[in-house]
Amino acid sequence: MSNANYRLISLPVIQDIRGSLTPLDFQSQLGFLPKRLFMISDVAPGTIRGEHAHRECIQALHGVQGRIKIIIDDGRQIHEVMLENANSILVLPAMNWATIKFLDEHSRLVVYASETYSESDYLRNYSEFINLLNIGVSSGVQ
Amino acid sequence: MSNANYRLISLPVIQDIRGSLTPLDFQSQLGFLPKRLFMISDVAPGTIRGEHAHRECIQALHGVQGRIKIIIDDGRQIHEVMLENANSILVLPAMNWATIKFLDEHSRLVVYASETYSESDYLRNYSEFINLLNIGVSSGVQ
Repeated sequence: MSNANYRLISLPVIQDIRGSLTPLDFQSQLGFLPKRLFMISDVAPGTIRGEHAHRECIQALHGVQGRIKIIIDDGRQIHEVMLENANSILVLPAMNWATIKFLDEHSRLVVYASETYSESDYLRNYSEFINLLNIGVSSGVQ
Repeated sequence: MSNANYRLISLPVIQDIRGSLTPLDFQSQLGFLPKRLFMISDVAPGTIRGEHAHRECIQALHGVQGRIKIIIDDGRQIHEVMLENANSILVLPAMNWATIKFLDEHSRLVVYASETYSESDYLRNYSEFINLLNIGVSSGVQ
């Protein structure tokens, strides 16, 4: 059983002589309305960020510039997703340990979050993350 | 009297050795929660887009790449705002006629909107826009 129920969404692109327009309806396409975003930029190629999970917060990762590799650890399996164009968005449910590797100069990642910022929602200790997953399994929550 | 109550918000940037993180809390910083976004890209330098107003929808314009000039017409005055770094966001209330000029190659604009898409919210005829503003003045709505 895996809880890696992430989704990689390809956004439609409307092209005309004035350029490309990419629309996104948050509720119907991502399944949530974002309360905040954060943007990560000025990252040296090869830099690793993330390396935490969230207890409740759902996130949608939008690589608006450069190639960005997302490594998703659900406690059982590792999954890799490459964000390499701005028309893809990765929806990442809570309780996935995510590692973000920036591959290109001038990469820029925008993350939309279902919750306002709360440090207590962050799981920064991998053992604690695994323990919480195991409690979930034993209590039938998963 | 002017209804050009737009706001240009400078986002804080948290810098460390892994790069820059720019957080944004939608409700407290923009004054609304977005229900959708659209991204405009692949635009030839000099291209004009926009040229319409919205009856109800509030928008926040985020120039994530390149220099983008926003010309705001409130029916009485013209205001120009330059988006030239990804740490600025322009909050544009309803009933402003906006023209968007993309100045650089590879520019990319993300717009967050307070409402889901509705064609009836768009005012694409300038005379109709002015007439609606005048009705607002005469009835004391403004």
